[in-house]
Amino acid sequence: MTFSQLTPPQRILMGPGPSEIHPSVLAAMAAPTVGHLDPYFLKLMDEVQSMLRDVFQTTNPMTMAISGTGSAGMETCVVNLIEPGDRMVVGINGVFGGRMAEVAERLGAQVTRMERPFGEVFTPEEVRAVVQQVQPKVVGIVQAETSTGAWQPLDDIAAIVHEAGALLVVDCVTSLAGVPVEIDRLGIDAAYSGSQKCLSCPPGLSPVTFGPRALEAMDKRTRRVSSWYLDIGLLRNYWGSNRAYHHTAPINMNYALHQALRLVLQEGLPARFARHMQHHRALKAGLNAMGIRYSGAADSCLPMLNSILIPEGADDAAVRSQLLNEFGIEIGGGLGPMKGKVWRIGLMGETAKKSNVLLFLAALEQCLNRQGIRPDPGAGVAAANAAWLAS
Amino acid sequence: MTFSQLTPPQRILMGPGPSEIHPSVLAAMAAPTVGHLDPYFLKLMDEVQSMLRDVFQTTNPMTMAISGTGSAGMETCVVNLIEPGDRMVVGINGVFGGRMAEVAERLGAQVTRMERPFGEVFTPEEVRAVVQQVQPKVVGIVQAETSTGAWQPLDDIAAIVHEAGALLVVDCVTSLAGVPVEIDRLGIDAAYSGSQKCLSCPPGLSPVTFGPRALEAMDKRTRRVSSWYLDIGLLRNYWGSNRAYHHTAPINMNYALHQALRLVLQEGLPARFARHMQHHRALKAGLNAMGIRYSGAADSCLPMLNSILIPEGADDAAVRSQLLNEFGIEIGGGLGPMKGKVWRIGLMGETAKKSNVLLFLAALEQCLNRQGIRPDPGAGVAAANAAWLAS
Repeated sequence: MTFSQLTPPQRILMGPGPSEIHPSVLAAMAAPTVGHLDPYFLKLMDEVQSMLRDVFQTTNPMTMAISGTGSAGMETCVVNLIEPGDRMVVGINGVFGGRMAEVAERLGAQVTRMERPFGEVFTPEEVRAVVQQVQPKVVGIVQAETSTGAWQPLDDIAAIVHEAGALLVVDCVTSLAGVPVEIDRLGIDAAYSGSQKCLSCPPGLSPVTFGPRALEAMDKRTRRVSSWYLDIGLLRNYWGSNRAYHHTAPINMNYALHQALRLVLQEGLPARFARHMQHHRALKAGLNAMGIRYSGAADSCLPMLNSILIPEGADDAAVRSQLLNEFGIEIGGGLGPMKGKVWRIGLMGETAKKSNVLLFLAALEQCLNRQGIRPDPGAGVAAANAAWLAS
Repeated sequence: MTFSQLTPPQRILMGPGPSEIHPSVLAAMAAPTVGHLDPYFLKLMDEVQSMLRDVFQTTNPMTMAISGTGSAGMETCVVNLIEPGDRMVVGINGVFGGRMAEVAERLGAQVTRMERPFGEVFTPEEVRAVVQQVQPKVVGIVQAETSTGAWQPLDDIAAIVHEAGALLVVDCVTSLAGVPVEIDRLGIDAAYSGSQKCLSCPPGLSPVTFGPRALEAMDKRTRRVSSWYLDIGLLRNYWGSNRAYHHTAPINMNYALHQALRLVLQEGLPARFARHMQHHRALKAGLNAMGIRYSGAADSCLPMLNSILIPEGADDAAVRSQLLNEFGIEIGGGLGPMKGKVWRIGLMGETAKKSNVLLFLAALEQCLNRQGIRPDPGAGVAAANAAWLAS
């Protein structure tokens, strides 16, 4: 059985990822494939590593892209640092903290689940209490909870974890290249991200970085890493100076990541962070003017992932369908306990621009009207415009 | 630090993969990205699954593409079927059998290594002897050893493994869509492949298929699968009718696989197998006329992976560099114990065409001349042309 040729629709990707992709990144995907040991590709790998270090704000030599999606990056961090029986504390205030705990449990870790209701963030005091009690080898925490939009401050927590002699693993899937991810300044020992969020590259690669303490812990392992595919010891030989064949890297995905990273660094990290924040503020002003509230605390909202409470009387699925089918706009529904309660509006990477904010606010007004909900006509757009003017 | 824009060279990919890629597949890579839960993408996943079933010659519902390269597919098969302490027999006659054994050992299997010198294949008798003695839960074997070019017959072995009540896992990375891979006729319980070989798609996805006995074995597990990312129980919910979010699939990679599969099925499997065989015979005739011999036994040479002995007096690296730099032709060197002893000439998927065979033979003659090796001038090309005429 064969099927007709691919004709994907043009979407405005305002969900929790993938985000919009610059045409030059899509064009890079279609560049001629070379071999994974071709001198050209080896040079490209060097450049990807160098640019990833800049974006992660680190000098860690072991900074590279795992050949899988963000969850493969999460598993890479855990499987290389944890041996069966090791103690690990995981902060769970959303779906992705829960996933990290499950990944660690499957790998035989003794996991202590440090929990907070969805949407909240952890205080230094509670982290200190748990870490002092458990004395873990590894602490895992999510900087940007894609399921709730919560932005976890890391400065104090990093100090607490290191004082206790533990390693800090941070989920930067949604934060990298959207808000500061300061690996070296905070001494974060291992971190992972995804290509399809604020890097604005198609999904398929997971940038990771490992610091000296993490590599030391790997060197001290008594058992081999249970995953051959994700073993950093083996990957170091391919991404390091040996260039020993490990697996066949996704060549064209790495082309795309190379171009996406070029765009990030051409814009510059401070400008990019400011752009995310500016358009987030405009979106928030517009939504508030329409009577819509965020699900999380006001002082810990991520700029690139806006989790808003579905207005009373609105049909979750109907609104998202109308946005998709009539306007081509994708937004995200709620995950886990947030299902049916929130919408998640992404402003990640290329998606974070004025035109998307305005179109979304205007389209949402129409969709709410269809549901019998009538915010002040044009109030969302007016408030967003006012916010930009004031900024 | 930023780098200049990507300008990969045009290569003729005659190595052990990646293979040449049809322009329509590269164009599909650059189609607009949609969300991983977009109705359009869910339909595309259905179509990819359906076409993969045709190529694997199976009706297995659980047939899909793992979001990683071929080695991730290997790990998926092993990690889902093996629990710590399970007995597994792995046939090792090349690098990839050795890799499967290592993957299984890391996951706690009691592995029996059934070994043969590189380049040879296993006889039914020796498989029967080992299987009867070990009584394993799983037997793993490589149909197409990419490191040696050996083509393992499977009919008798499949019967022997099933008579012993074991599950048969087959590595089809290099064979799928190049020679028959008959999952249902042989009752193969699990198999994995890679997108970048005879499917002629960029690397980054690993087609896998699981039969009913394999799924039953997964249902009977007493421990969870140690890898969250590769857990078929979770992936069944995403690729199955539930469409429950698991991970963000590599959207554009799946576009490319969709188009690559369309091309495979438009050509038709019998025609595609015949094409691989025809051009392999012409290549072999040409090489033999130049005094070059294959490294493996004549009756078990894969058509798409031609492992030839480096002629005495030729400098391995110098010849491969000249081919690459002067002709744009990539061929593979030897892996493991074959390093420095063989060259590996791929004729996979789009690469398997007359023009590549002729150019390679002509270019190789020039490179050998540079090394002071002088086959009969034009003999390779003449013999290849004669082989096509006679076919």
